[in-house]
Amino acid sequence: MSESTKSLPTQISNLARRRWLASGSVGVAAAGLAGLQQNAIAQAVATTATASPAAKPLPSYVSWKDSSALIVHSSGTIETRRSAFGTSVITPAEQLYVRNNLPAPDASIIANRDAWELQIEGVKRPATLKLQQLKRMGLETVTAVLQCSGNGRGLFPSKPSGTPWQIGAAGCVVWSGVPVRALIAALGGVADGMVYMTGTGGEKLPEGIDPKSIMVERSVPLKALDEAILAWEMNGAPLPLAHGGPLRLIIPGYAGVNNIKYIKRLAFTTEQTEANIQKHGYRISPPGQKGDATHPSVWEMNVKSWINSPAPETGDIPAGDTLIQGVAFGGMHAVKTVEVSVDGGKTWKAARFIGPDMGKYAWRQFVLAVRLDAGNYTIACRATDSQGQVQPEARAENAGGYNNNSWKDHAMQINVVAA
Amino acid sequence: MSESTKSLPTQISNLARRRWLASGSVGVAAAGLAGLQQNAIAQAVATTATASPAAKPLPSYVSWKDSSALIVHSSGTIETRRSAFGTSVITPAEQLYVRNNLPAPDASIIANRDAWELQIEGVKRPATLKLQQLKRMGLETVTAVLQCSGNGRGLFPSKPSGTPWQIGAAGCVVWSGVPVRALIAALGGVADGMVYMTGTGGEKLPEGIDPKSIMVERSVPLKALDEAILAWEMNGAPLPLAHGGPLRLIIPGYAGVNNIKYIKRLAFTTEQTEANIQKHGYRISPPGQKGDATHPSVWEMNVKSWINSPAPETGDIPAGDTLIQGVAFGGMHAVKTVEVSVDGGKTWKAARFIGPDMGKYAWRQFVLAVRLDAGNYTIACRATDSQGQVQPEARAENAGGYNNNSWKDHAMQINVVAA
Repeated sequence: MSESTKSLPTQISNLARRRWLASGSVGVAAAGLAGLQQNAIAQAVATTATASPAAKPLPSYVSWKDSSALIVHSSGTIETRRSAFGTSVITPAEQLYVRNNLPAPDASIIANRDAWELQIEGVKRPATLKLQQLKRMGLETVTAVLQCSGNGRGLFPSKPSGTPWQIGAAGCVVWSGVPVRALIAALGGVADGMVYMTGTGGEKLPEGIDPKSIMVERSVPLKALDEAILAWEMNGAPLPLAHGGPLRLIIPGYAGVNNIKYIKRLAFTTEQTEANIQKHGYRISPPGQKGDATHPSVWEMNVKSWINSPAPETGDIPAGDTLIQGVAFGGMHAVKTVEVSVDGGKTWKAARFIGPDMGKYAWRQFVLAVRLDAGNYTIACRATDSQGQVQPEARAENAGGYNNNSWKDHAMQINVVAA
Repeated sequence: MSESTKSLPTQISNLARRRWLASGSVGVAAAGLAGLQQNAIAQAVATTATASPAAKPLPSYVSWKDSSALIVHSSGTIETRRSAFGTSVITPAEQLYVRNNLPAPDASIIANRDAWELQIEGVKRPATLKLQQLKRMGLETVTAVLQCSGNGRGLFPSKPSGTPWQIGAAGCVVWSGVPVRALIAALGGVADGMVYMTGTGGEKLPEGIDPKSIMVERSVPLKALDEAILAWEMNGAPLPLAHGGPLRLIIPGYAGVNNIKYIKRLAFTTEQTEANIQKHGYRISPPGQKGDATHPSVWEMNVKSWINSPAPETGDIPAGDTLIQGVAFGGMHAVKTVEVSVDGGKTWKAARFIGPDMGKYAWRQFVLAVRLDAGNYTIACRATDSQGQVQPEARAENAGGYNNNSWKDHAMQINVVAA
């Protein structure tokens, strides 16, 4: 679109804040999701990418985001474009992906953030605390990769159902809040015999539907509480509604779905929740098989990396010196090394990490300078974590298309032309 | 203002992204500065705070910023509110202060970022390079405190002329770009006998004025090039126009004015520039004396810290457990420790750093848990850097009100009431 079709402030705003990408969705806002009926919700949850996702406007609850940096798959599934990822570790809120299993609650829940209430159960002294009280109980800041367990599903040849995310259902975010440890200590400790930490989201559930069939409630192993925080701030600003504000459970190293948004209840339990999203959803089950308790739940993330630049979407690359750069992370462990290949994995060269090391749960930016003559290349990268775990060549096939960290699936063809 | 007076997208946007502060300037945009005449420019540059700065709207070139987080002193001087600083190290672009010595260039200069040209002189092989070429020559990411040398001027009892900044003319930012080292190496190295690195801004100068009297051109010691980068990215997004996009010289540890925006020329020189902003401006001269070459230029920053919360502006503090938190940095050296006092400096307690250490040029967040009974307290903090340099009790008096790092000037009175 020509800039002359926009107001001056809009021009300046877009020009000043954004990569210069044409976008058909600038300024357009779709109808909100509030008040959706049951079937509409089911539809919204099921909807996935169309042939031209870029044509879809941003839903109103994220109208403040950078439309030029995002691919809207559906109202609740919005992916960051590969070309939008910068080289500065942090993913700005305006560019961060969104994956909502249910429509976001009404914005009124963050009109008075400090009044938000969290119910804590399964501790020696159960209590309901206001955010204002939590803010006085402790403060910790952690940088962590937030990634949807389905990130990379779009790279499965089997095309599992669900959003066909490529690499953009992930970001690296700085979170601030109170450590769950501090909260538990103040309440006398975890009650005896508890095995899981269970978080419940504050989404408004539709009438006339079994809550368990749709509620966002997840259980993780008790040990996860050691590094978990209840966060009210993201990247230095109050946690946006779209990302779980006013309060979100952050479990560093665990897949996105476990990081409960607008958390209203934190319970320590002897069993995993009976909610469908835990019982059957987000399970690593064999292709064609519905998930159940016998299949591993999507919890800890694995070692992974991908190249952000150059990429086919940015067009032909002029021959000569080129910087290959991307991101790498280890999930539960620090990433230690990244290798890059320009011949589809036949040979590898060690890449260099750049920028600050923000801790073992953050990703690192890597770069490798190469000289490329005109021709076609298959570029790939492969990360190794501090435990020696190497990003595998092959994906682990599963019905849901989860946890794809195959370096081969993430390889890309680029075309280098005479400069 | 009542939310009902705003559109739904605006409500959601504000609610989702911002601290909940009423602001009279939401959505209002002042006339741009483009085309200002000579006297108007002088005025814009000279304008400082009024009794109610919050009442001033954001200038259009920063209309995308968070008005609720900012104090508009003038079109070119905008401060971050103490209450807006988060606890997550990074200062989001929407909340970052702005200090422009001249009006920002027209937004058209970032319509095609890669076409921006930089002239490099005082090297063995002088050249003019496009940003697109610089992007292939090297990549480095550095986190650094960006601070106006006048930050804290408002705390001088002598009220020096200039913007009466409190603590908000500073932020911690992640920058990505090409190291100046790499650029120099590609051009055969610095020419013999050069002593300074001189950067020239791309501002459009008004007609009928001696360019030297107003141009933004600064010289720093040659050694500064070792860690300097030419940055095109800030906090993971393309560098906004308001912060020097498409290309800015970043000299970690050096006061803001040396970090030339929209840099169009980088020269290695035998002398410092004759521009007024270097020859007379930004010099540490005795009170009442105009600065000149005999006075130190505002270059390296010094060790400093301040408390962001609690603060008088946030009202009475309920008695009981309180977290005192703020930021600390060492300028050219890593900050090593921070002490906090609740009795005006009679006694001190060591605070704890939280969050990631983003390198020696970044600031650290610190926190100290204290139990306060009802009463009045004078809270203060005092940082020490890795070289053992301690933040002083007294400011160094000077005509320009520069480099105020006095812990006493930064102390605050708070009122604690029975909970």
